Amino acid sequence: MKELRYRRRVQFADTDLAGLVHFSWYFRYMEEAEHALWRDAGLTVASPSDTIRYPRVSATCEFRAPLRFEDEIEIEIRVAAVGSRAIRYDCVIQRGETIAARGSITVACIDTADGATPRAIDIPGRVSAALEGRA
Amino acid sequence: MKELRYRRRVQFADTDLAGLVHFSWYFRYMEEAEHALWRDAGLTVASPSDTIRYPRVSATCEFRAPLRFEDEIEIEIRVAAVGSRAIRYDCVIQRGETIAARGSITVACIDTADGATPRAIDIPGRVSAALEGRA
Amino acid sequence: MKELRYRRRVQFADTDLAGLVHFSWYFRYMEEAEHALWRDAGLTVASPSDTIRYPRVSATCEFRAPLRFEDEIEIEIRVAAVGSRAIRYDCVIQRGETIAARGSITVACIDTADGATPRAIDIPGRVSAALEGRA
Amino acid sequence: MKELRYRRRVQFADTDLAGLVHFSWYFRYMEEAEHALWRDAGLTVASPSDTIRYPRVSATCEFRAPLRFEDEIEIEIRVAAVGSRAIRYDCVIQRGETIAARGSITVACIDTADGATPRAIDIPGRVSAALEGRA
Repeated sequence: MKELRYRRRVQFADTDLAGLVHFSWYFRYMEEAEHALWRDAGLTVASPSDTIRYPRVSATCEFRAPLRFEDEIEIEIRVAAVGSRAIRYDCVIQRGETIAARGSITVACIDTADGATPRAIDIPGRVSAALEGRA
Repeated sequence: MKELRYRRRVQFADTDLAGLVHFSWYFRYMEEAEHALWRDAGLTVASPSDTIRYPRVSATCEFRAPLRFEDEIEIEIRVAAVGSRAIRYDCVIQRGETIAARGSITVACIDTADGATPRAIDIPGRVSAALEGRA
Repeated sequence: MKELRYRRRVQFADTDLAGLVHFSWYFRYMEEAEHALWRDAGLTVASPSDTIRYPRVSATCEFRAPLRFEDEIEIEIRVAAVGSRAIRYDCVIQRGETIAARGSITVACIDTADGATPRAIDIPGRVSAALEGRA
Repeated sequence: MKELRYRRRVQFADTDLAGLVHFSWYFRYMEEAEHALWRDAGLTVASPSDTIRYPRVSATCEFRAPLRFEDEIEIEIRVAAVGSRAIRYDCVIQRGETIAARGSITVACIDTADGATPRAIDIPGRVSAALEGRA
């Protein structure tokens, strides 16, 4: 299967005073799924042995149904596009059969060797190849 | 001035291992600005004396420049549209003259009196009127 | 086994610019373990059908070793004491054989029916009995 | 004045489903005050030009009164002790005249030049001197 289905439970600290998951957490759920997809492909977004990182250049989410404390949710993530300098993912967050949210995240690739001035670089070939295999 | 300019400093806990502000925080910065705009208009998004809340139905952000620990930033927020059941805001996050991000957030209105089943309702007239005055 | 061992992976958003897990997350890890213990005992700390909640009255943590992105960790939690109005938990956070932290959390019991003025109440007998069985 | 009084407002994302500030945020509030104290002393805990960082070795908090969305709070922080390898701070969090929490945080000093193995080092003399002036 090319897409990855990542499961997790809604935690207490994810909620806000409205009694629902705070919207910022949907973006973190999508990012957790992205990193699970990388691990599943034998990769990591943040190796301690290099200074390459993958910051987000855009993120969007449509919230369809509320999520609550202790809900068991599933985030389906698929690689929508792999370019030389950007990767786009599409995500669906579900609680059982209910679609809670749909979102997309686009990431770039930087070298942070010079902490003061991160430099945009091409996505390493090994990463592109592995993720294209999931597209 | 119809838009609101909300200032805050990037805190340590907003950053991640890449040394930059985590992208989920940009959405929280925009929400902080929204709530400051409501206060400036004599409103609150969460009165302890009623059960009306304003969940997000969509959120989007384009990240243009990194933000770092202790950066002083300004979030400009303006009311882009007020409908009977939704409010849309447009935001620009700046560090000095640098545009760090542009984003939009659309919120709906619910009554959470029955915690198990929040019910979509019309935005109260007092709120619509106050925010239309800022559009 | 009376204690509970809760496993989770360190997520990207848990880290800060030092490249390590931010200390506030250790407290959230302990709380996640607490809630897993309650579920294991057939309980929940936040039922949608009542207004009883369990706020913290004290929390303490000694940090022994750093945790990093993608570390697989285990939080061992045990009920140290159950009183009429307070429960104390002791926790150990480990990464493999390494003890990363030791902490304690004490919680009280409140009724939030009147949102403006939460009222301290006795811990419900059903909860005390179930947790004493784990002490 | 040797202690520092740091003011901030409780934000929506600081709250949880109990309608109160999540306890992990009290630790972040204390840390924000710590960093404001450093700035006030002409210092920063995380210079982009070096690899010295100040991780927490212990943290403790007693929660006395709940905090809510939009509360204006004040965190008073004072340097309780400066040793060669550790600094301890004592904090009081207040909302008006109400003491919401009392806490202490002890930090060490590490060099993260080798990301894989942070090394404990003495606190730089310039930092010790500046903070002893506040003790």
